[in-house]
This record gives sequence, structure tokens and C-alpha cells, in this order.
Amino acid sequence: MTLTEQITGLARDAKTASRELARLSSEERDLALQAMAEALAGAGPELLAANALDLEVGKTLGLSSAMMDRLTLNEARIAAMAGGVQEVAALPDPVGRILDERVRPNGLRLQKISTPIGVVVIIYESRPNVTADAASLCFKTGNATILRGGKEALNSNQTIARLMVEAGRRTLGPRFPAAAIQVVPTTDREAVPILLSQTQYVDLCMPRGGEGLIRAVTECSKVPVIKHYKGVCHLYVDREADLNMAESILWNAKVQRPSACNAVETLLVDRAVAVEFLPRAARKLQSRNVEFRGDAQSLELLQGIPDLRMKLATDQDYATEYNDYVLNVRVIAGVGEAVDHIHQFGSAHSDAIVTANEATARKFLTDVDSATVYWNASTRFTDGGEFGMGAEIGISTDKVGARGPMGLEELCSYKWLGWGTGQVRG
Amino acid sequence: MTLTEQITGLARDAKTASRELARLSSEERDLALQAMAEALAGAGPELLAANALDLEVGKTLGLSSAMMDRLTLNEARIAAMAGGVQEVAALPDPVGRILDERVRPNGLRLQKISTPIGVVVIIYESRPNVTADAASLCFKTGNATILRGGKEALNSNQTIARLMVEAGRRTLGPRFPAAAIQVVPTTDREAVPILLSQTQYVDLCMPRGGEGLIRAVTECSKVPVIKHYKGVCHLYVDREADLNMAESILWNAKVQRPSACNAVETLLVDRAVAVEFLPRAARKLQSRNVEFRGDAQSLELLQGIPDLRMKLATDQDYATEYNDYVLNVRVIAGVGEAVDHIHQFGSAHSDAIVTANEATARKFLTDVDSATVYWNASTRFTDGGEFGMGAEIGISTDKVGARGPMGLEELCSYKWLGWGTGQVRG
Repeated sequence: MTLTEQITGLARDAKTASRELARLSSEERDLALQAMAEALAGAGPELLAANALDLEVGKTLGLSSAMMDRLTLNEARIAAMAGGVQEVAALPDPVGRILDERVRPNGLRLQKISTPIGVVVIIYESRPNVTADAASLCFKTGNATILRGGKEALNSNQTIARLMVEAGRRTLGPRFPAAAIQVVPTTDREAVPILLSQTQYVDLCMPRGGEGLIRAVTECSKVPVIKHYKGVCHLYVDREADLNMAESILWNAKVQRPSACNAVETLLVDRAVAVEFLPRAARKLQSRNVEFRGDAQSLELLQGIPDLRMKLATDQDYATEYNDYVLNVRVIAGVGEAVDHIHQFGSAHSDAIVTANEATARKFLTDVDSATVYWNASTRFTDGGEFGMGAEIGISTDKVGARGPMGLEELCSYKWLGWGTGQVRG
Repeated sequence: MTLTEQITGLARDAKTASRELARLSSEERDLALQAMAEALAGAGPELLAANALDLEVGKTLGLSSAMMDRLTLNEARIAAMAGGVQEVAALPDPVGRILDERVRPNGLRLQKISTPIGVVVIIYESRPNVTADAASLCFKTGNATILRGGKEALNSNQTIARLMVEAGRRTLGPRFPAAAIQVVPTTDREAVPILLSQTQYVDLCMPRGGEGLIRAVTECSKVPVIKHYKGVCHLYVDREADLNMAESILWNAKVQRPSACNAVETLLVDRAVAVEFLPRAARKLQSRNVEFRGDAQSLELLQGIPDLRMKLATDQDYATEYNDYVLNVRVIAGVGEAVDHIHQFGSAHSDAIVTANEATARKFLTDVDSATVYWNASTRFTDGGEFGMGAEIGISTDKVGARGPMGLEELCSYKWLGWGTGQVRG
């Protein structure tokens, strides 16, 4: 069997499974999810053995210690993974919601109802827990999933998927389609473009990972892609900002968890308050050894602070997601320039303004074309849990399909049902 | 300037224009649309002169008479085009609707509001009126449009777009961005893949036209595509159908307008009623000289009808959108087989069941994975106007972004606004 035949078969099986998944009741899906959670929780030795094989591969590949850590499963992580699946089981059913309803003059009743999307491909990097997360969210929404994790995590990922499928079949018997959750069974790089050209079987691809991965997927995919692209997030401190609030939000957005995609990379300060705000913000962040990269004006204002790590920012810096204790700064002339900077360098993820002036805030909220825009709040809130979605499969920086945090509702499509009594078109 | 530079410039200008469009008020957009409608209505001689050039090109290209007719503008068509723009002006503003709202325990108020998508590329075939339709719908939704019509319609399309832009600028002055509505100024085929690789500027592409066009666009596009693919629509007549209703719906769905994408191509009949229903349906449709292509069983039941045009159907027939007085028929064993046939051969557009049994109907509505599924109604209702959307830019057979008839709301994206009072993440 060629690789193309193998991958085409995988995709075709997923499509068939998706038809069967659409027929499961809400209760059946939740029962299966509970069984999957229990199976994962009880399979510690098996998961650790599979993971040990992957760690061997990782060592051979010379992975960094950070990557080895991400790849590692242990009892606590297995328990967390199982707990995540259990939580998904407990969430309300996102399928079958009535999104719109209208009765036409001829009596035809039209209902727009949420449905599964069909077959969803998830492409991600090393953490094996993503396998259980993504598979459970897709299963909850009635979607068949095809998972493609990092090549070094294949054994762990296959074991997780197999445990989940076995649990599903124990619970629902043949009503649970074995191809509901599949892991691409090869590390061959060519598998990805083949999979993403199966337009007749695959309905959506969601890549999660670094910029290179996202670009490679977008480049080769013939199926719709929802991207979870980098977060170059901004905080704009307006001339009418409460500077205590601005400092507190900056602290939270920059250093509470710099590795998060919703952490701030760039601070824009209105020149009317820059003299006061910039040095004070810098002194505060210096306690976490934050490095500053600024325009000439910012650096001048920061000059007097002893031992501050700072240098001139390049355009490249302004477009970079550091995920680290580094902050770009720039002094600008008002909200209009802030908006322009964000459109030029941002990634349309999450941006915030601090101001006491509602008109200025409304201008920022209207003009900034990002998935989430905040007034007087931290960008760190862009997260499915913080949004009350219960779970999150990622954060979309796209504008078609879903935007911002993606929970269960965002993993649904819809269809229109027409309830008639013999109506024909005039 | 190379073609790549030219097309990149066009896309970049559209993105800049889209930022400016997002700042226009609802009233400003409607004023501009009214002015555009008047400009088109008053520009008969200019439009006819441009169209005459295109008709010359069409003759040289040896277009069929049907294609020449589609390409032709006349006073009535110009009036209809202007009237369409006027109607769009009168529709409610689709931008800024609050789609969801929630206040988190920390007091952060989250609003999900409808926004323009940004830059929308429309690729279509010969009818020049699509230029005005698509441009007005996109402008109403605050989107910048890049239009690519048939190569034989370039002069007409450019004139329509120029008249609309001039009217916009007369009305709103420099607040109306000249690049709000652009026609790709070349017939070079290479322009399309270049345009559809501008992921930093283009947010969505909507191809409208034949299967070849749709496939070519999907194949080359790096930006999200919402397809308006063929309509291989089905009518399933169940064993518990009211056969008078079934006959009336079949008549409407097949012969009221066979060229429409929501017309039925295939009739599936439950074998329990086939002996009674098929011959009577055939005699009725014979009055319009409909040709039947059926499986062996159907043909046997139809044998006794004098002069009926009929032949054995191939798998290819079952997958074909005829847009003509041709009907596939097949005798099947119940709703399950109907669903399977539809999934194997259909195009996920519009499908209907006629039955008096609610459980059977619900099974069909749930299991058929198409954009619109009807119970006891004609498939011909799949249309923005019939759905009460006021206008329609097409009918999506995709499952991500929009599905089924696409009106103004379906030309919108959304963003989340976070209204805070200094909240930071714990």
C-alpha cells in the first residue's frame, strides 16, 4: 500500500465515522467520554511504557531539555489528561442548538441548528496531552478527528488514541466507530500534504504550534484551515490612562506568564504620559529582569534607570512574539498611531487600551482589527476558560469560521432545516 | 511593474481601504450605496458602450449564444442592477450586532460583535451584474472587494466598479476609500494564483461559477475559500408520503427552473410506493419532455409509458448537476438507503424528504449532512430571498464560515470586546 493509499483510506474512514458519530445521542457521547477518562486514568503503566519509547527517540533526535520535558508523561500529567476528558464529558452538548428560527409567509419553518463539522484534522507539536484534549473536544462535538502530533510523540499519541477508542467501543459497542479518533500512523512528512488534499473527506484542519508549522500547513492545504497563529499582543497606555491601572495591567500581561500567546509583547505609550509612565513601568518590570527594546525616544526616557537591559528596537522586534521576559516599547502620538502600529506589526490576536476616556476607548475597540480587544483589562484573558467556554481547542487569529478562543461551539458547523407542509416555490 | 507587483499592490490597497471602511457609519455606507444605485441607473449610454466592447471580444472568442446573452447589458438589466444596489442600501446594517454577551465573575464584560471580514475576493463568470451585486453586498458589510469576472466582461465590470467608486467619493469625499471596490485590471490567468496567495492582505475568496472554476480556485488558494459548488439535490419519496404532495414538490423542484442550483437532479423512491408513484410522476414530467435516467428497477416500472425518454443511469449520472430537463431516478429500500445515496452522490446542497411519518423525517433531517434539508417542502427554497435574508451573494456548500444561503450576516466576521475596569488575570 502506498502512502497516498494509506492516508486516503484514513481520511475516508474518518468521513464514514463522522456520519456514524452524527447519529449518537448526547448521552451516548458523554458516556463514551467518561469511559475514555477512566481508561486513561487507569492506564498509567501502559502510557508510561509508550512514552518511554518516545523519550528514547527524543534523545536520539537530540531534543532540547525543554522539548524533552514537553514530551514527558508522568502520573500527574496522565491524571490531568484524564481529568480534562472528564470535564469535557460534563459540558453541555454543543450540537443541536437552535441558532436561528424563522417562519416564512408561506408557513415554511426554517431552523438553523448547530451540527458537527465532520472530519477535523489537528496538527500539533510535542505535548502528548494535546491528543486527549483535541480528541475529546472533537468527539464531544460529533466530529471525527485525525491527529498528527510531533514525530517524537508517535507512540504516546497512538496509545492515547487507542485507549480512547477501546473505551468508546466497550461503552457503545459497534455504534462507536473505530475511526472516530485516528492518529496518522507514520512520521513521514509527506503524509501531511496528502492528508490536506483530501477535500472530499476532510472538512477542516487546525494547526497548533510555531510559525513554521502554521505556514507549512497553510501553504499545502486544500481544505479549510483555522490558524492559531502567533500572539504579538499590544498594550496601549493613553494620555488619559489611570497609570496605576496601566502598571497593574502591564505587569499582568507581560510577566504573569510570558510564554502564553496572549502575553503582551509591545507597550505603546502616548507621549503625553511617557515621561511619567515609562520609567516607572521599567523600574517595576526590572524586578523580573525584563529587557526593553525601544524606539529612540523611549530609550532616552529610560536612560536614567541603572542596570536596565535595553536596546534599540528593530521592525523585526516589533513583529516578534518573544514568549519571554522581553518587551518592545514605543512612544506614539495618540490612539490613531497606536491603531496603525498594531495593524502594521500585530498578529490580530489580543490588544488592549488603558484610558479613562470612553470615546478614545471606543475608537480603539472599533478600529483595532483583532480577535479580542480590551478596554482597561489585561490581554491575558483571551482564553476559553476565562471566556467561560469550559474548554478550549485553541485561539483563532483567522476571520472565517471562528475567531478568538475556540471552545465547543466553535467546533460546530450548522445546517438549515426546512419544516414544511407541502410548500413549493412560486 | 511586474504582474506580481501589480496584484500585490491591489491587495495591499484593498487592506488599507478595509481599515477605512470599518470606520464608516451605517448611514454613510447607505448614502454611498444610494448614490451608487443612482449613478448606475443614470449611466446607461456609458455602460452600453463599455459592454459593446466586451460583446466584440465575445464574438472574437466565439462565445455561445447563451454566453453572449449572459454577457449582454441592456436598459432593463441596468435598471435591475441599480435597483439591486438600492435594495441593499435599504437593508438593516449587519455590522455591529451583538452576537453574544457575558459578564465574567470578575466583572469583565465580554461582547461578541459582528464585524466586516476585511478584504473579500469574488471570482465569477460572465454576467456583469454580479459586479454590482457583489460590490454592494460587500460594501454594505464594510468589506473591501476585489472582483475578478470573466475575461470577456472586463470593460463592463471596470465601468460598473468605477461608477460605484466615483459615486462613493462624491458622497463621502475622502472618507470613501478609492480601493473599496476594485476590478482586477488584467485578464492574465496568472493574476488569480498571485491574488490568492496574498494571505497578509486577503481574508476570503468566494468563487461563483462552474465546477472547473471552483476546483481551480480551491487548488491554488492560500486564503480561506467559501465555495458555491454544484447542486446535486435529491428528493426522497418515502413509503409514507402523501403522493399528491410528492408529485407537486417534484414538479416544482425539477421543472419550475431546472437551471437553478437548488433544482432536484435525482428522485429516490421507496420501493413500497415506487409501483404507484414512479409511473405517475413520469407521466406528469413527460409533459415537459423530461428525460429519465434510472436503475434497472425504475426503468422496468416506467416501461409501459409510451414515448418516455429514458435510459440506464450510470454512477456519473447520479453525481451530475444537469441544470436541464433530465432526472435521475432510483428505487431504494427506505430512508437509510436514501441517506446513503445522498452521501455517496450528492453535493451537500439541498435535499428533501416527503413523508407523513415524523420519526422518518427526523432521521432524514438529522442524518443528511447537507446545507439545507427539507421535510415536505421543495428544495427550490434554498435562496437568500426565500430565507428572508434580503439579498444573497451565493449558497455555500462548505461547512466552515458559512453554510447554505449567504446574505449580509454571512459576509461578516466577529470580534470579542472586553470591557474592563482594570481586571487582571489571577
